[in-house]
Amino acid sequence: MKKFSASFLILLATVWLNASAQTTQPAPGVQKLSKGQPDKFTPYTFCNEQPMVTAMAALPAGKLPFDVNDIGISINDRGVIVEVPLADKEQLYGFGLQIGSFNQTGLKKQPIVNDNPLNNLGYTHGPATFYVSSKGYGILINTARYTTFYCGNIAKLNKQQVSADSKKPADSVEGLYQTNGKASNVVTVDIKGAKGIEVFVFSGPSLMNALQRYNLFSGGGALPAIWGLGVKYRVKADFSEHQVGQMAAYFRNNHIPCDVLGLEPRWQTAAYSCSYVWNKSLFPTPEAFTDTMMRKGFHLNLWEHAFTHPSSPIYEALKTKAGNYQVWGGLVPDFADTTAANIFANYHNETFVKKGISGFKMDECDNSNIAYGSGVWSFPELSTFPSGMDGEQVHQLFGLLYQKTIYSIYKKSNLRTYLDVRASNAFASSYPAALYSDTYEHDEYIRMIPNSGFSGMIWSPEVRESNTIKDLMRRSQTAVLSAQTLYNSWYLQSPPWLQINKEKNNKVELMDNAKEVEADIRKLLNFRMSLIPYLYSAFADYHFKGIPPFRALVTDYPEDVNVWDISDEYMIGSGILAAPLTEKADERSVYLPAGTWYDFNTNQKYEGGKKYTIKPSLNQLPIFIKAGTILPLAAPVEYVSPSTKFDITCYVYGEGDAQTALFEDDGITFNYDKGGYNNIVLNWNKGKGSVKRSGGFKGVRFTIKKWQLIK
Amino acid sequence: MKKFSASFLILLATVWLNASAQTTQPAPGVQKLSKGQPDKFTPYTFCNEQPMVTAMAALPAGKLPFDVNDIGISINDRGVIVEVPLADKEQLYGFGLQIGSFNQTGLKKQPIVNDNPLNNLGYTHGPATFYVSSKGYGILINTARYTTFYCGNIAKLNKQQVSADSKKPADSVEGLYQTNGKASNVVTVDIKGAKGIEVFVFSGPSLMNALQRYNLFSGGGALPAIWGLGVKYRVKADFSEHQVGQMAAYFRNNHIPCDVLGLEPRWQTAAYSCSYVWNKSLFPTPEAFTDTMMRKGFHLNLWEHAFTHPSSPIYEALKTKAGNYQVWGGLVPDFADTTAANIFANYHNETFVKKGISGFKMDECDNSNIAYGSGVWSFPELSTFPSGMDGEQVHQLFGLLYQKTIYSIYKKSNLRTYLDVRASNAFASSYPAALYSDTYEHDEYIRMIPNSGFSGMIWSPEVRESNTIKDLMRRSQTAVLSAQTLYNSWYLQSPPWLQINKEKNNKVELMDNAKEVEADIRKLLNFRMSLIPYLYSAFADYHFKGIPPFRALVTDYPEDVNVWDISDEYMIGSGILAAPLTEKADERSVYLPAGTWYDFNTNQKYEGGKKYTIKPSLNQLPIFIKAGTILPLAAPVEYVSPSTKFDITCYVYGEGDAQTALFEDDGITFNYDKGGYNNIVLNWNKGKGSVKRSGGFKGVRFTIKKWQLIK
Repeated sequence: MKKFSASFLILLATVWLNASAQTTQPAPGVQKLSKGQPDKFTPYTFCNEQPMVTAMAALPAGKLPFDVNDIGISINDRGVIVEVPLADKEQLYGFGLQIGSFNQTGLKKQPIVNDNPLNNLGYTHGPATFYVSSKGYGILINTARYTTFYCGNIAKLNKQQVSADSKKPADSVEGLYQTNGKASNVVTVDIKGAKGIEVFVFSGPSLMNALQRYNLFSGGGALPAIWGLGVKYRVKADFSEHQVGQMAAYFRNNHIPCDVLGLEPRWQTAAYSCSYVWNKSLFPTPEAFTDTMMRKGFHLNLWEHAFTHPSSPIYEALKTKAGNYQVWGGLVPDFADTTAANIFANYHNETFVKKGISGFKMDECDNSNIAYGSGVWSFPELSTFPSGMDGEQVHQLFGLLYQKTIYSIYKKSNLRTYLDVRASNAFASSYPAALYSDTYEHDEYIRMIPNSGFSGMIWSPEVRESNTIKDLMRRSQTAVLSAQTLYNSWYLQSPPWLQINKEKNNKVELMDNAKEVEADIRKLLNFRMSLIPYLYSAFADYHFKGIPPFRALVTDYPEDVNVWDISDEYMIGSGILAAPLTEKADERSVYLPAGTWYDFNTNQKYEGGKKYTIKPSLNQLPIFIKAGTILPLAAPVEYVSPSTKFDITCYVYGEGDAQTALFEDDGITFNYDKGGYNNIVLNWNKGKGSVKRSGGFKGVRFTIKKWQLIK
Repeated sequence: MKKFSASFLILLATVWLNASAQTTQPAPGVQKLSKGQPDKFTPYTFCNEQPMVTAMAALPAGKLPFDVNDIGISINDRGVIVEVPLADKEQLYGFGLQIGSFNQTGLKKQPIVNDNPLNNLGYTHGPATFYVSSKGYGILINTARYTTFYCGNIAKLNKQQVSADSKKPADSVEGLYQTNGKASNVVTVDIKGAKGIEVFVFSGPSLMNALQRYNLFSGGGALPAIWGLGVKYRVKADFSEHQVGQMAAYFRNNHIPCDVLGLEPRWQTAAYSCSYVWNKSLFPTPEAFTDTMMRKGFHLNLWEHAFTHPSSPIYEALKTKAGNYQVWGGLVPDFADTTAANIFANYHNETFVKKGISGFKMDECDNSNIAYGSGVWSFPELSTFPSGMDGEQVHQLFGLLYQKTIYSIYKKSNLRTYLDVRASNAFASSYPAALYSDTYEHDEYIRMIPNSGFSGMIWSPEVRESNTIKDLMRRSQTAVLSAQTLYNSWYLQSPPWLQINKEKNNKVELMDNAKEVEADIRKLLNFRMSLIPYLYSAFADYHFKGIPPFRALVTDYPEDVNVWDISDEYMIGSGILAAPLTEKADERSVYLPAGTWYDFNTNQKYEGGKKYTIKPSLNQLPIFIKAGTILPLAAPVEYVSPSTKFDITCYVYGEGDAQTALFEDDGITFNYDKGGYNNIVLNWNKGKGSVKRSGGFKGVRFTIKKWQLIK
C-alpha cells in the first residue's frame, strides 16, 4: 500500500470537487451530467419504464441555447449547488403541479410534497425538480431531497444585477419590493444534504419538444383505460352497498353519464385507518355487489391510503419492511423495497383487482403542513426505512412509489386503469393516475391544468359542494374540460347538482330547480362523452409522442410574448383552446394566439393574436376551435363498455384542407404496445371527408357518420 | 504507523456514534451534553456575556424529572436526532417568539427565522431551539440549523401510542384528525445536516427557576435605559427634520408623553437601501437637529437594515467580509467576523452614537417567506460567508449578531439604550432590543407577550392604523401593558389617534372626535409613565435574577392546570395580571389563579381559582393586582430625563403585611454592574409603610410620597 500525504489527498479531493461533471447521453437529445456521489434514491431510480428512444430520435435534433458545460455544479459541506444559465427574456415553467404561480421566472420555488400548499412557496401535491424553458429545453435535478430553485431572482455580490430598477436605490418600501424578480442570468438550485447530483438536460429545439423528450424518456405518457375519460362519481363515505346501488340507479334512470363509482373510507373495517378489508356491515356481499355494478357498466374505485393498520391482514408481513414511525397507528410500507411493494400489490391483486375493482384512490401520500387546525400527520422527515431512504426522500417519492406499486398490478394483468393519487413526482408520466386536492380554489384548479402539462402529470379539478349554482356550473365546465371529470361527494348524500349546499344536501333538501340544474349538468357531461374520441387520441399522442394532452398555450406558442403569463387558458389536444370561468364573473377576456379560431358555441370566427371578451352561458363550454382542426364529436353514451361504439360527426373548422388521426384500440388492455391498435386518418380535402383505417386492432370503435364544415 | 482493518475502523466509528454523550456542567444547574462534531457556529458561540453564576447558585437546587442520560442523541447520514423524555400531562412552552401557538405539547414546531410566519409552522421573527416544561426544566438544542421539534406528536412503529383515542381506528376524517396531538412520551428533534450537537439542560426545580437559569446563563436579562420604558413614536418615513420638530412640538404642547422619536428610511440618502448617510435634503443639519431634540427630552432612534449599499462609506471595507450574494443591491456583512462587526460598529459609533443617536431599529434581519406578492428578498440559504457559516446559519443568527454589533457600541460607551430588532435567537436575553412585526393581528400580538418570556425575548406589539377607535384603544392598552409602548407611524402623517384611517390620516383629515380620543390616549400613556418605577424594577429582576418581566401565567402557577393553555393573560412583574381585549368584544373572560385579586379600575376584590367576566372601558387598563402587592405608581412625567424624579404613591393591595423593592440607579449607564444602584425596600407592616434605601447609587430617583391601602 502506497503512502499518500494528507495534503496530497486534500489536493486530490479539491481537484475532484472542481472537476467538470461527467456527461453522458442516456437517450437521443437527453444529456446527463453527474458529479460527486449522487444519492442512491432519486426519482429516476424508480423509473422502470424504458425510454421510447425511437420516438425521441424522430424529434427534431435538439439544440441548447448554452453549452452543457456551462451548467455549474459545486459541492460543499452544506450540499450541492447547481447553476444553469438563464437568458434575457427567457421564461421558465414547471416544478410539478404548482398551484400559486405559473411563469416561474424571477421566483423562488421549493417543489416539496404537501397537501396544503400555502404562501406560494412551491409546495405541491406533485413536486418535480424539473423546469422547462421558453428557449426550448428542460432541466431536471434528479433528487428526492427538498430542493430550492432560485429562478434568476438572486444575484452574487460582485455581479451587476440585470434588472435596471435595482441599480437605483429604492426610494420606498413599495419601490423596494418592486425591484424584486429577475436579478441575474442564472437559475440557482440548492440541494441541501446532497453529496453529489445528476442533472438531466432535455433538449428541444422547442419547449414542446423538450416536454416530449421528458415524457418519452419517462416511458411515454399515460394512456388511461378509455372508460376513465368518462365521468367519475365518488359516493358518500358511509354509503352501504344498497345506497351505492341506489346512486347507480339514479344515474342510469336519469340518463346522466357515469363510468366510475368511487367508494370512500367506510368501505373498509378500519374506516379511515386502513385494513384493506371490506366492512361487511355496509358491504355484506362485496363480490356480488362488484359484479352487479360492473354489469351495469360501472367501474368501481376504492379509496385508501398506504398507512397499513395493525388490523390489516398484511400488517405482520410488512412490519419489518416499514419506516420506524407510525402514521395514524399504521405502518408506512417501504415501497422502495420490492418485497414490501409486492406484498402490498399481491394482496390488492388477489383481494380486489381479480374481483373486478378497476382502480384505487391513493390518498394521504403527500404530507401535512399544519393543515386542519394545529394537527400534523404523516411520518417525520427523520424517519428511517429499511431500504436506506430517509423520511424526507420517502415523502418526496411516496406518491410515485405508491402509484407504481398499484399500477404494477394492472400492468401485469394487462388491464388498463385510471387511478387517483394525491402525490407524484418526476418521471411519472407513464402512470395513469390523476392528482387531486382538497384546496378547492377554482382559480387555482384552473391554473393547475396548464401547469400539469409541464411535468408529465394528470390533474383532476374535482367538484364538491358549491357556493352558488353558477359556481357549480363553472366548476363542472372546468371538470369537463380536464383530464378527469370527477364529482367527489364523499361527504354529500345527494349529487351536488340537486343541492349545492352541503348541510341541506345531507338532509336531502333538494333545490327547487334541481331538475333544471340536473339537465344543465347532463348537457355538460354529455359533451364530455362526445369528446372522448378526441381526448383519447390526445392521450395516445401523449403516450406515443410525449405531447401533453392538456397544456399551457406557451407550449404551443412559445414565441408569442402574450401567452407567457397566461395560466387561465390552455390547449386540449392540438385544436381546442379552453378558457374557463369561475363564479366570480359572467364574462372574461380571452387571448387567442396566431391563426383563426371559432367559438365552439356560436361558430363565430375570430382572428388570432388578439384579446376578446366572451360570455359563455353556464351550460356551454368556454372553448375555441382552431382553424384547420377536424373535431370528431361522438353521439354521447352513458358509459363506455368494451363493446361501446362511438358514432362520430367530424366538424371541420376553416376553409382549407385538414387532416387528423384517431387512435383506436380495445381501450382496456396494453395490447397497443404490441401493435394492437388502429390509426384512423381523417382527411378533409377539397370539401370532402375521407377515412382511412390501418393497424393491428381488429375491432371498430369509431364510426364516422357525418362531416360538417364550419367556416 | 499501525495498520487497522477497515472493519475495525467501522466498528470504532459505530461505537463512537452509539457512545453516550459527554456531559459537563458549565454553570450551576446547567448541564451540557455533547456528542459527535458539534457545529462551529451556534447561538451559544456568540454569547460573550458571562453566566451570572452567583445568582444561579442562589436558586433552589435543580432536579430533573428524568436522568440526563435518558436524553438520546443519535447521528446518522441525514443529521442528528435528539430524543428527550416527556411525561404524561407534561406541558411544553417556548421555541422563541411563537405567534400561532402557545402550549406546544403535541405540536410540530420549526423555529425558523421569518418575517411572515403563516401556517403555524413555528416560523417566527425570534426563533429559539429552546423549550421549557411545566415539570421544571428547559432544553436547548444549540444549533443554528433549521430544526424541527416533534413535541410528543410522533410515535415509533413498535410503540403503543399514548393517546387512548388513537388505539381505535378512526371512524371519520373528523375523528381521524382528532386523534392528533399527543402520541408518545418523547420530544423528538430533527437537526438535518448536523454532524454532532450540544444540548443544554437547564434544571428548575420550577419552570420559573429553569427560565431564570437560562436567562442568567445568557448573562442575565436586559435592563433597558429607563427612558426606553416610556413611549416611542416612529414618524412618517419621508418627514424632514422640520416635520419631525413639528411632531415633537405636538407631543410637548399637548402633554402627551413621548421619550423616543424614531426616524424611518428616508433619513438616509439611499432610503430603503442602506447608506447610513444622512439625507441632507430632508435633514440639512442632522447634528443641530439631534441636539435640539435631545434638549427637548427626545431620544432619537434610526431605522436601518444591515444590507450595506454600494453608496455607503463602509461598503468597500466590508466587501471582502460579506456573504457571496447581494440583498437589494447591498452586501450582507459577515458579523461573525469581528473585523466586519467592528467596521460596522465603529462607523455607527463615530457617525451616530457619538452625535447623540440613542438607538437603532434593526430591520429586515429575519428572512422572507414569499411575503409581499410573490417576491422574495434576503440572501439564499446556500450563501457562503468568509467566516465559514452558510446562509442558513447566518439567517438564524443574523438578528442576534446584528444586535450584538450595535449593542457593543453602547456597552463600550457605558451608555444604555433600548433597540428595536426584527429577529433574535437564543441566549439573547441580555440584549435590550425589542422585537416587532408587520403581521399586526392583535390576538397574535397579545399571545406573543407571554410567549416572549419563555425564551428571553422582549416583544413590542406596535400600534399603527386601526379599523375602529375601539381597535386603536384596545391596541394601545396592549402596547401600554407590554415591554415597549410603540406607535409606528412610518406611513402616517398624523398620530393614529387623531385619525385611525390611513388614507384620511395622510390627507390630514382628522376625526371629529380627535381631541376626545387624544385625551383617552393621553390617559393610557400617562398610566404607562406612572408604571415606569414598577416596570423598571421588574426589568432589574430580569437582569439580576433572570425573572422575565412579562411572562405567562404558567410561569408563576405551573401546577394550575387551568393556566396551561392561557395565552391571552400574562403577568407583569410579580403583582400585575394583564388580560387585554381586542376590538372583537366588549367583554372577556378572565381566569385568576389562586389567591386574592383586585380589579385595578374598580378595586373590586376577586377570589382566585375562578373565571370572571370583565368589561373594562377603552381608557382603562384591563389589569388585576394580586393581594400582597405593593404597587408603586408615579405621578406621570412627559419623558424621562437623567434628572427626572418620580413621585410615588404606594398602593398596598390586601390586608396583610407586604414588602417589595424598587431598583434605583442613574438609568442610563452600566454602573449598576459595579454596584452603582440602590435597593429601596418598601415595607408595609401593621398598616404602616416604611422605606429603606441601601446601595451604591448616590442620587434619588424615586420619592415615596404616599401610601394607600386597598382592601
